[in-house]
Amino acid sequence: MKYFITGAAGFIGSNLADCLLNEGHEVVGWDDFSTGQEHFVENACRYKSYQLIKGDNLDVDGLKSAMKGCEQVLHFAANADVRFGLEHPSKDIQQNMLATYHVLEAMRSNDIRTIIFASTGSVYGEASVIPTPEDAPFPIQTSLYGASKLAGEGLIEAYCEGYGFRGIIFRLVSILGERYTHGHIFDFYRQLLDHPDRLEVLGDGNQRKSYLYVGDCVAAVLHTMRLRSNAENEGGTEIYNLGTTEYCRVVDSIGWICAELGLVPKICFTGGRQGWVGDNPFIFLDTTKIQATGWRAKLSIRDAVVRTLQWLRDNRWVFTWCVN
Amino acid sequence: MKYFITGAAGFIGSNLADCLLNEGHEVVGWDDFSTGQEHFVENACRYKSYQLIKGDNLDVDGLKSAMKGCEQVLHFAANADVRFGLEHPSKDIQQNMLATYHVLEAMRSNDIRTIIFASTGSVYGEASVIPTPEDAPFPIQTSLYGASKLAGEGLIEAYCEGYGFRGIIFRLVSILGERYTHGHIFDFYRQLLDHPDRLEVLGDGNQRKSYLYVGDCVAAVLHTMRLRSNAENEGGTEIYNLGTTEYCRVVDSIGWICAELGLVPKICFTGGRQGWVGDNPFIFLDTTKIQATGWRAKLSIRDAVVRTLQWLRDNRWVFTWCVN
Repeated sequence: MKYFITGAAGFIGSNLADCLLNEGHEVVGWDDFSTGQEHFVENACRYKSYQLIKGDNLDVDGLKSAMKGCEQVLHFAANADVRFGLEHPSKDIQQNMLATYHVLEAMRSNDIRTIIFASTGSVYGEASVIPTPEDAPFPIQTSLYGASKLAGEGLIEAYCEGYGFRGIIFRLVSILGERYTHGHIFDFYRQLLDHPDRLEVLGDGNQRKSYLYVGDCVAAVLHTMRLRSNAENEGGTEIYNLGTTEYCRVVDSIGWICAELGLVPKICFTGGRQGWVGDNPFIFLDTTKIQATGWRAKLSIRDAVVRTLQWLRDNRWVFTWCVN
Repeated sequence: MKYFITGAAGFIGSNLADCLLNEGHEVVGWDDFSTGQEHFVENACRYKSYQLIKGDNLDVDGLKSAMKGCEQVLHFAANADVRFGLEHPSKDIQQNMLATYHVLEAMRSNDIRTIIFASTGSVYGEASVIPTPEDAPFPIQTSLYGASKLAGEGLIEAYCEGYGFRGIIFRLVSILGERYTHGHIFDFYRQLLDHPDRLEVLGDGNQRKSYLYVGDCVAAVLHTMRLRSNAENEGGTEIYNLGTTEYCRVVDSIGWICAELGLVPKICFTGGRQGWVGDNPFIFLDTTKIQATGWRAKLSIRDAVVRTLQWLRDNRWVFTWCVN
């Protein structure tokens, strides 16, 4: 199989590419390297079956040309920055909403009909049902990030209905692990490198969040794609929540991080139930549906946090370019 | 109050403008006249308190400039053509998705924070709960039109959460009445003008749909706006389904139309449960929420159908420009 991956130099996209190449598939990687990293494609570039193309999702003609000959598209490129959406709304509009439209149009012009899409649990806003199932009550969006991902979902669903596409949409919790470059562990570790004796935490520390290890995420995506491939005639959209069966509080994560680093910083909370405007103070997805396919997460949130921290300690160069 | 209306020369927008002007308000009407009609703004243009500006929602700078001094925005401009979305997907993306983003950005730059938005019952796709309430299970989109309106809803909600906007979103059923220029009555009457002895009907005629008279629609919008204005501190998004408490079958509507015209045509059904790809064979919204505010529809669907037909008979010129 020949796969086209958008965001191929990004956190999840590069891990996906490595796995697909390792399984013997061909991969065309597409990334604009605005946040993607050369380091993250080094392994993939060793494969003859890998082709890396630098390109922008706003360039629909470039996308059309790059996709030629591919059979399935994994659309993982995004402005993944949920926290700073309000500072530059055009990013979510362009990189999430319009980009997904362009990917779909490029697929249509190449007669590629299977798309796997990285959406987010943020589309549930402040969910009224927790753990939140895929068919939760119609939510109100609380972030531009969630709204722009929801727009992407809707377009994919309409293309499935209208043009006979097959879509698999994953609503992801926050992903942790190797090649992680933004989020609370990144922020906390950077602070503790600067000043090991104190840690500033957004909100009151009681925000409850779910996380998933990137290796488990990639395994779930590939597992679901295989199931879907075996059901050849199945059209339409399938939506899966993707997370572990647990959640943790921010203070839990702080405890694990400090224990791993052997630090006892003074912790200053900025206060309030939200870390920022639009922050969802409780994210916990019902993952019954994806588990019914046989997939299970192997790492606990604690293990994933520790592994992420270990990767950041081994890759401090990420702090030199990431501006959060 | 000074209102800004997008789609001010359109079906609902022009009726809204007339009502607001009649109540003594100032109105700035904005329309690109791609489907809007000069005839529909003739009445409004008699008011000194009305200013008509020809402009395109893709021109965000034009929007920003035109909105200056307005206090609330009624965003009713749209590509309202649910049936032909698949033939030109860029229309829904540009005129519904991007346009709504531009309207919101123009509001933000003018510090206008109240938006009233015409969304659609199509966002429920093929609803699993009928009559469908506002908090129905998270739907799968079945049309580009629905997907693009859902994207608009999500953006408005995110602007409410992030920038302190106040939003009122109406999920409309099909609207009938004076200045109606597309839909099944239009199609049927045009056919019967051409050949009074036969009528071709898309689908099997058993599609069940809801309709609402435009006067009732406008009354509901203005009623809800007033309620919201009285609750000054209430931020966030409020969503209302808008329709009657009944639905009809396509064959019912055909019966009313033929009786009104005194015709007994041979009726040929193209067959199938849908009129076209993505057509929802059963639309019936739960309107408990809007009714709880005290609003009631005055016209039955039958009365609305007959009144629409009467308007079309008196305004046959619409058939000369409308290309459906």
